[in-house]
Amino acid sequence: MAGIVVQDIERADDETIAGLAECGVATVHEAQGRKGLLASRMRPIYPGARLAGSAVTISAPPGDNWMLHVAIEQVRKGDVLVLAPTSPCEDGYFGDLLATSAKARGCVGLVIDAGVRDVRDLTEMEFPVWSKAVFAQGTVKETVGSVNVPVVCAEAYVQPGDVIVADDDGVCVVRRDEAAAVLEKARERMANEEAKRRRLAAGELGIDIYDMRGRLAAKGLKYV
Amino acid sequence: MAGIVVQDIERADDETIAGLAECGVATVHEAQGRKGLLASRMRPIYPGARLAGSAVTISAPPGDNWMLHVAIEQVRKGDVLVLAPTSPCEDGYFGDLLATSAKARGCVGLVIDAGVRDVRDLTEMEFPVWSKAVFAQGTVKETVGSVNVPVVCAEAYVQPGDVIVADDDGVCVVRRDEAAAVLEKARERMANEEAKRRRLAAGELGIDIYDMRGRLAAKGLKYV
Amino acid sequence: MAGIVVQDIERADDETIAGLAECGVATVHEAQGRKGLLASRMRPIYPGARLAGSAVTISAPPGDNWMLHVAIEQVRKGDVLVLAPTSPCEDGYFGDLLATSAKARGCVGLVIDAGVRDVRDLTEMEFPVWSKAVFAQGTVKETVGSVNVPVVCAEAYVQPGDVIVADDDGVCVVRRDEAAAVLEKARERMANEEAKRRRLAAGELGIDIYDMRGRLAAKGLKYV
Amino acid sequence: MAGIVVQDIERADDETIAGLAECGVATVHEAQGRKGLLASRMRPIYPGARLAGSAVTISAPPGDNWMLHVAIEQVRKGDVLVLAPTSPCEDGYFGDLLATSAKARGCVGLVIDAGVRDVRDLTEMEFPVWSKAVFAQGTVKETVGSVNVPVVCAEAYVQPGDVIVADDDGVCVVRRDEAAAVLEKARERMANEEAKRRRLAAGELGIDIYDMRGRLAAKGLKYV
Amino acid sequence: MAGIVVQDIERADDETIAGLAECGVATVHEAQGRKGLLASRMRPIYPGARLAGSAVTISAPPGDNWMLHVAIEQVRKGDVLVLAPTSPCEDGYFGDLLATSAKARGCVGLVIDAGVRDVRDLTEMEFPVWSKAVFAQGTVKETVGSVNVPVVCAEAYVQPGDVIVADDDGVCVVRRDEAAAVLEKARERMANEEAKRRRLAAGELGIDIYDMRGRLAAKGLKYV
Amino acid sequence: MAGIVVQDIERADDETIAGLAECGVATVHEAQGRKGLLASRMRPIYPGARLAGSAVTISAPPGDNWMLHVAIEQVRKGDVLVLAPTSPCEDGYFGDLLATSAKARGCVGLVIDAGVRDVRDLTEMEFPVWSKAVFAQGTVKETVGSVNVPVVCAEAYVQPGDVIVADDDGVCVVRRDEAAAVLEKARERMANEEAKRRRLAAGELGIDIYDMRGRLAAKGLKYV
Repeated sequence: MAGIVVQDIERADDETIAGLAECGVATVHEAQGRKGLLASRMRPIYPGARLAGSAVTISAPPGDNWMLHVAIEQVRKGDVLVLAPTSPCEDGYFGDLLATSAKARGCVGLVIDAGVRDVRDLTEMEFPVWSKAVFAQGTVKETVGSVNVPVVCAEAYVQPGDVIVADDDGVCVVRRDEAAAVLEKARERMANEEAKRRRLAAGELGIDIYDMRGRLAAKGLKYV
Repeated sequence: MAGIVVQDIERADDETIAGLAECGVATVHEAQGRKGLLASRMRPIYPGARLAGSAVTISAPPGDNWMLHVAIEQVRKGDVLVLAPTSPCEDGYFGDLLATSAKARGCVGLVIDAGVRDVRDLTEMEFPVWSKAVFAQGTVKETVGSVNVPVVCAEAYVQPGDVIVADDDGVCVVRRDEAAAVLEKARERMANEEAKRRRLAAGELGIDIYDMRGRLAAKGLKYV
Repeated sequence: MAGIVVQDIERADDETIAGLAECGVATVHEAQGRKGLLASRMRPIYPGARLAGSAVTISAPPGDNWMLHVAIEQVRKGDVLVLAPTSPCEDGYFGDLLATSAKARGCVGLVIDAGVRDVRDLTEMEFPVWSKAVFAQGTVKETVGSVNVPVVCAEAYVQPGDVIVADDDGVCVVRRDEAAAVLEKARERMANEEAKRRRLAAGELGIDIYDMRGRLAAKGLKYV
Repeated sequence: MAGIVVQDIERADDETIAGLAECGVATVHEAQGRKGLLASRMRPIYPGARLAGSAVTISAPPGDNWMLHVAIEQVRKGDVLVLAPTSPCEDGYFGDLLATSAKARGCVGLVIDAGVRDVRDLTEMEFPVWSKAVFAQGTVKETVGSVNVPVVCAEAYVQPGDVIVADDDGVCVVRRDEAAAVLEKARERMANEEAKRRRLAAGELGIDIYDMRGRLAAKGLKYV
Repeated sequence: MAGIVVQDIERADDETIAGLAECGVATVHEAQGRKGLLASRMRPIYPGARLAGSAVTISAPPGDNWMLHVAIEQVRKGDVLVLAPTSPCEDGYFGDLLATSAKARGCVGLVIDAGVRDVRDLTEMEFPVWSKAVFAQGTVKETVGSVNVPVVCAEAYVQPGDVIVADDDGVCVVRRDEAAAVLEKARERMANEEAKRRRLAAGELGIDIYDMRGRLAAKGLKYV
Repeated sequence: MAGIVVQDIERADDETIAGLAECGVATVHEAQGRKGLLASRMRPIYPGARLAGSAVTISAPPGDNWMLHVAIEQVRKGDVLVLAPTSPCEDGYFGDLLATSAKARGCVGLVIDAGVRDVRDLTEMEFPVWSKAVFAQGTVKETVGSVNVPVVCAEAYVQPGDVIVADDDGVCVVRRDEAAAVLEKARERMANEEAKRRRLAAGELGIDIYDMRGRLAAKGLKYV
């Protein structure tokens, strides 16, 4: 089953992707019906990074980073590499040399359900990575995997060309063909939140703004 | 059992609370006989935060943040929200809107044995949170829990009105009626430590300052 | 078996140690044949720290930090304390007083497969620690362990006098008698990487630089 | 704070305790409003064990089983030992000698948020234990703890004399003064479940028996 | 997105399913190119269980088992329920009443990336479950999810009607439209293994049977 | 560093090994000064297994079981295979074919800090395995490791020819040249325990048998 590189993938349009990046993970996740989050073990290697991009997916054996070299050739400007090992692994598949190469090809970041190393260099390069571990453990280049096939990465199903949104809250995947609609809902949500934020900042209570008192009483909540 | 909001809770006096904040978690924990620590999984969302405040406790179902809205009404200036889910959960119960609301009511921070989101915003707001996870996963508002009842939060028993002390080392709870006595002991400890710090900084050894050599030999320690 | 303090240990020479510090963990680990890494749970208490030093090893019971006081007497300028508990433990064995003492004796850092506390102070002191936990939990001084005996720390075998290299990627141990040879290989590796980095930054692909296309095809990789 | 042995504790009556044992953990937990469960890491050392008994609680330092010897003197016929370490620990506090002693004093089982050893012998003796680990690691007898003080054991607050119910599903604690009322509700629940079980076994659907179709539709569930 | 019940799903034919059950998880997983395994946290509640069946999938909120009642109506003889919570949860979604109901409808087992309870009863009923936890924690019925939509369960992508194979080694999913082909390869593999087993049992070495010595030498293996 | 097979290793004598098997893990661990235990994650695949044997060690890459084939040639009657992956891995390195081969060469069991599969077959064959996971995930044969070199397996340092003792309590390693002395102490310990067991079974208390009351009082224990 492994051993395939899909070269032509479709991507969402650049404006939609840029819009999703602005909305951020929590808002996008809510806007698409609370789906698409990768597991909470996926953490950024430095605070403050945020991005959106098209997924170039990688299915790789544990402890073998060969397919990263293969995948980088498939990257176009604005893409995000998404690596899912075929079994749990925390080895350091990716470091400063691969980041240099990926960046040169237009890659904007890496999402990897495994380890990463050279994080000091990556931080200086401002190359953002979301990973489950930081680990210097080296890898081999002996077994082929696949590039641009659907993968499950950190509990989420990711298809090549899906939009990856990532920030300090984690990582979310948006289906390519739903991206525009999700963006629209995310923007509505943000506009709506802004009004609420002002009221809450003024000291109004959520239970009043959202008119919760009746429903709370109906569910049996008692004040004593 | 669930479905209760206790509205009148007693709190320690403001000066005691402010004093405990200055002492910090490690010192307070030692001063009260090495008890009261929450589990080490409770980590601050940004470095450098430190606080003390009175606990407004929340018992909430997994994946349901309704009681946070209810609890915020109970907050007085200087309080800390303490949320314990009724079973293990890492969903993001709390984000920037709730933080805006809580802050407007005088809340100084959140301790939550679950997840939190919008951490970039919370960091900019300087609203400190200690949580077991950062996770954008949304929650529902369907099931009532309780506010200001005793809870076990991250392995520690917390009663409403107890003093929560939190910093980079984690979170500690001090019984309300022991707070003044604990503060006194903590201050003694700090004064005592200052003297030791100077001697240690000058190169004196702890085994001499604490006169440990005889006891070590009696326990069988051998130098070879 | 416990209860021994070995006072005379051999160390690698200072220049070799300084050279290894410059190379960093990932490079040193590769240069010595991908061995010697401590488990990925060992994380620095603040970003950006990096060091190399000679290991003064400590085998200590869970929840008992007595041997740290004993070990500090054995420290010489440039040493790193390496503590392995005899069973898994995350208590805070080490805080600002011990750091003050260790620093005064010339100790450059701590590697501990357990917890550490007072991390705010340690950060201000710029005393680097790699640990598996930050936890304010106090310890006792009741049971003797050993100093400068071989230990397994976070899955790695460490002998007293071995060179510890640590940075944001984690911690690596280099055998004392292999240190000079490893440094030589690490430097070759760095020189070699510099040339590759320039080619990759210019957009050349790793699969071309490393001439991988033929071997990938032989292993059955198919482009579709 | 440590160093106290409370000798006189109140217990629930034997019939109530026996009744709770028959109901089992899941039913008792539901009957008392879904509270009181210990964390799921507490597993029986062999399948099929079930019990209820009065808690004799132990607060013990990590890696130190001295208080078990002290606690056994406090055991009366039908009691369950409940050990909570003061910080996380998986050492083997308890083995066949302590089990022999405990059994001779009338103890019916052990609940320990740490490790246990000699599990082959304990199984042959039919001495049931619920623990978070099986681990042969030995302990010391150097530091005092307390017996029959309130503890948090595996996330649950346990007071001396509370009723412990344990079976293959885990462990639940029932407040001593609520035990009789909980038993009554548990028995009602069991009677009620028996009727439902027959209908379900005959092929009737829960969504019909519980009349859920309208509420599901109201919440927006759509059949396609 | 949630709130959908798909009523008509296609299933593989009964003979193919029965054949896959005989082959077992390890063989089926290899036969389909080492894909489709659920994470190793999925363990059977009793040893010796083995099955294959068509997946009726459930996407359910954390701590809410309402959709199990809905799903049971969709079960046909030979089906396996596959429940994936929308965020990590170990609550006991399923116990003896639901098992009675599911069994009455022809369900042959449950695969759940959460908790299960009443395991003593389930064992006596011989109703097999693979779960990530045994936990008595109860659930609510407040929020709708979906039935027979694609889910990610324990790191594997499962579509309704896919074939689930489960035994003591864990759980594997086979795409419905690949099931017949996978069965064929699995049977070839078993036949092939039988011949090898006899040679190995007679003392022949794998490195000779598989002719590995040359390749090992070429890769640099040295005997000393 | 990898790529070495050491063919001649020394072993402890058969009688010593058999004696250690009888004593069991907990006793042997105590007899040698509470050292040598592997981490508690190492669990037997079925209850009741117990063994002792000489370690044939394997250092293997993650997800690559080639070296198991190589190691089996080095096995002599009574040996135990001990596999340590070079980075954390839970793949199923070992199944019924390898067990058939190993058994035919006289191997009495496997200790593996990774996964194992075909556990139903292994159980029927009565081939005992202690592992950190049961997982059907297959492995490749692409990268060489080493056989009969020192390894760290599950936190313990194991040299080829060391004695491995394993039972329901876990796994312990005894240095080859200490085996006879450890056996002697273990037997003394067992004899000594037998006398204590009788007294404890008769209801005498440990705090009296071990004369602890004075020391407890001196440490400040108070009865209230």
